[in-house]
Order: sequence, then structure tokens, then C-alpha cells
Amino acid sequence: MRSEEPTQPHQRLDAELTLLWRRLRWMSVTLARKVDDGLEAPAYGLLGAVHDAGSGVRGGDLAERFGLDKSTVSRQIAQLESLGLVERVTDPDDKRARLIHITDAGRDMVFRLRVARGEWLRTALQPWAESDVERLVALVGKLNESVGTVLGKGQDHPV
Amino acid sequence: MRSEEPTQPHQRLDAELTLLWRRLRWMSVTLARKVDDGLEAPAYGLLGAVHDAGSGVRGGDLAERFGLDKSTVSRQIAQLESLGLVERVTDPDDKRARLIHITDAGRDMVFRLRVARGEWLRTALQPWAESDVERLVALVGKLNESVGTVLGKGQDHPV
Repeated sequence: MRSEEPTQPHQRLDAELTLLWRRLRWMSVTLARKVDDGLEAPAYGLLGAVHDAGSGVRGGDLAERFGLDKSTVSRQIAQLESLGLVERVTDPDDKRARLIHITDAGRDMVFRLRVARGEWLRTALQPWAESDVERLVALVGKLNESVGTVLGKGQDHPV
Repeated sequence: MRSEEPTQPHQRLDAELTLLWRRLRWMSVTLARKVDDGLEAPAYGLLGAVHDAGSGVRGGDLAERFGLDKSTVSRQIAQLESLGLVERVTDPDDKRARLIHITDAGRDMVFRLRVARGEWLRTALQPWAESDVERLVALVGKLNESVGTVLGKGQDHPV
């Protein structure tokens, strides 16, 4: 995939993570396509973020976090709203602003997609020794800590 | 982030990968923002895919692979084209179709973003024992194999 052959350990990790990212994205697109509601795959990423935010989120914060234009977020949120998966309500702290909330139908959709993804990962790990899975969980956890340290505070805001 | 506490190994791996995905996305958005050319972050994903495809790719194939509407891909490719990062040329095999090619400027941009990402990962891994990095590379490689087996053929097409 790259013109340069990765030699240093961090380059080889980058190459493996890029491949994993690509395969997991393809898996997500495949799962999203099964739902077949006419949404673009990234809309489910926004839906998941609205879900994880819990108490309502502003469109501008979603745009910031996903590196999207506000108009793109507005368009995708409008689609999610027309399907009854989210709703926009007036922000009690700022009457001019609107907060995006997950609906019961949206919560159900996120749950079903995550269960499907979990089942899919369980199938992939079936041939593994449990000790190898545990080792991978621990090392990815360690990587998350190191990455979090470099990113600094604020990277764990769910949106 | 989840309402249910993950208990099984595949659920804990899913939780760690979700967190990693979120942090790496935030890192990518931060890198893309530094370039400051008015592109949305996902446009760089498309640019990278056009780069990796090597010999030109159809917009419809990009849409399929990323789970995007063709209109979304067209809009983002038009933006990339207006910045001189890609160009659209007539497909020699089908005069009615157009293939998207990377330009020298686009290749340079992909290279610079990947070097920046690599440096960033190298910094995150600095406190690690090299044996732990090697172990993680091997286990993510193994996961890629297992995930690839479940996904079946065709998942490695770069777009």
C-alpha cells in the first residue's frame, strides 16, 4: 500500500493499524448497509457520538470533533432526525441554541449495531487462545494511554 | 462510554479499539486542521485511497468502499481537484467514464500527512520497551488476519 517499506517498529505498527482501520471500516460499512435506511455510513458515527454524549450535544461540537463542516453535520443530523433516530430540542441554558438528543429508536439502533459488531469480532477471535486476546487487550489499552498522553486533555470527550 | 460494562474478552477488545479509533481520529482531525486548506477531514481519507489505488479509481468505487453517497464523493473530489491534489481523466477503457488520479501535489500532501502521523506515533511509543511494541505489532497483525478471514475476499482493495 505504501511506496516506502516500513522498517522501524512504529512504522510497522502504523502499517498494521492502517490495515486494521481499513478492514474495520469496511466491516462497519457492511453492517450499516444491512440496515438499509439510505443513510451514509458516517451518519452512524455521528449517531453513536450523540448516543455516547448522553445529555445532548451541539452540532458545532460534533463538527469540531469529526473535522466536518457544520453544513455537513446539519445535513446528516436532519437525515437522522427524519428517521426518528435523534431529535433537536432548545438548549435550556441558551434559548437560541439547539441540542441534539438521541431518541429511543436511536438508542435501539446504536445498541443493535454494536451487538452486531461485537458478534462479528467474537467470530474473528474464535480461533485465538484466550491468553493472546488478553495480551492484545492489555497492549491496546497501554497504547491508548500513551496516545492519550500525547494528545493531551480533552481527547476523551465522546463527541 | 457504554451503558453495559464489557466483561467478555472480545467486548473488552472492542471497547479498547473503539477508544483507540476515537483518539486516532482526533489525531487525524488535528493534523488535517494544521494543513488548513478548508477541506473536511474525511477528504484526506479519500485522498489517501486515491493515492493507494495507484492507477486511477472511479468515484463509484470510492463511494462503495467508504459507504458514502456518490454525490458526497463527487463534492469532495471536486474540492480536492480545485486544490490541485487530484485530477479526473477519461478512462481509456470506457470513454464515458472518468478516473480519479493523484497529482504530484496530492502525492506530496499524502506523504507529509503520513510522516506527521508517523512522528506522532513514534512520540507516543517512546517510553515503550521495544519488545512490547514488537508484541503489539505481531498481535495486531494476527488480528488483521482473523478479521480478513471473516470479511472474506476483496476487503483489501485499497479503495
